[in-house]
Amino acid sequence: MKKTAVLLYPQFSEYELSVALLILMQGNKPIVTVGLNDQPIKGESGLTCFPDTTIHDVCKHEIDSLLIPGCMDIGTLIHEQDLFNFIKYVGTEQTIIASISSSPYLLARAGLLKGRKYTVGLPFEKLGEIGVFETENYSERVVVQDGNIITARGSGFIRFGVCLGKALKLDFDENWYLED
Amino acid sequence: MKKTAVLLYPQFSEYELSVALLILMQGNKPIVTVGLNDQPIKGESGLTCFPDTTIHDVCKHEIDSLLIPGCMDIGTLIHEQDLFNFIKYVGTEQTIIASISSSPYLLARAGLLKGRKYTVGLPFEKLGEIGVFETENYSERVVVQDGNIITARGSGFIRFGVCLGKALKLDFDENWYLED
Repeated sequence: MKKTAVLLYPQFSEYELSVALLILMQGNKPIVTVGLNDQPIKGESGLTCFPDTTIHDVCKHEIDSLLIPGCMDIGTLIHEQDLFNFIKYVGTEQTIIASISSSPYLLARAGLLKGRKYTVGLPFEKLGEIGVFETENYSERVVVQDGNIITARGSGFIRFGVCLGKALKLDFDENWYLED
Repeated sequence: MKKTAVLLYPQFSEYELSVALLILMQGNKPIVTVGLNDQPIKGESGLTCFPDTTIHDVCKHEIDSLLIPGCMDIGTLIHEQDLFNFIKYVGTEQTIIASISSSPYLLARAGLLKGRKYTVGLPFEKLGEIGVFETENYSERVVVQDGNIITARGSGFIRFGVCLGKALKLDFDENWYLED
């Protein structure tokens, strides 16, 4: 089975990823964590992670989906041209892309939000200034799916994970978090 | 400010920790992640983490609280006597202890659940067989606080984090996950 590539960068949000990762695991979907380089990466809440591979080394043919966490300060990534190139390279119509919180900025920079409905965890008033978002396609919904692209605000992290699991047609218990 | 020690071991549950970690970060509470040794640790959902220190090296005087995730197979830890000793050593009445899913087993092994109300993410029918739980003090509630000890089932991971934040008297937004 092809893998879901999980992007990791400094100050990534652990909780925004966590339920999506759980659902991928429940659905027996293999993952590969992908860093900007091979160095340890500290998340916003203090977990230090090691990526399995890097954006330079991951094999595109092994992956069919991309999971992108938010970043406490997405501004730290604005010069990472190799990251935008990677997202553009893997972000074909055949790839399921799930991007939460501030990270749809990365999709916009990679040109993947053109003509797509999306949401993002950034203030709407700022989107025009930032210059890469089509403001007319912005949605206030917490989770938005337009074709192969899922976007969500951070607070929607549970439904975001559920939406990714369904888009990948995984077999998982959608209501696990409601159980005792 | 003293730190919260966050235990990590192979197959720890990332999502069970994630909201508690977010709330500690929101409340400006420093953390230190603590492994059984200094090797990388793979969580149940596939994140490979590197602990800041180990149960042998962490300074007890730097910590005032302990956060313990569940483990996909808690049976893998039954021979980790050093881990039980560590939990017993730091688990004084002055330490806030938050333990989720299967991990209250570790508290029971360390003798910290004696006379305490608790819950645990293991089948009630098994608790007697396991031989370290006081079954008369078991509660079916999803999150239980008895003095300085908080226990929860995995599905209560959001309320578990909120309960820890309150027990530590942190300043955080209890309803962050209800916002857009």
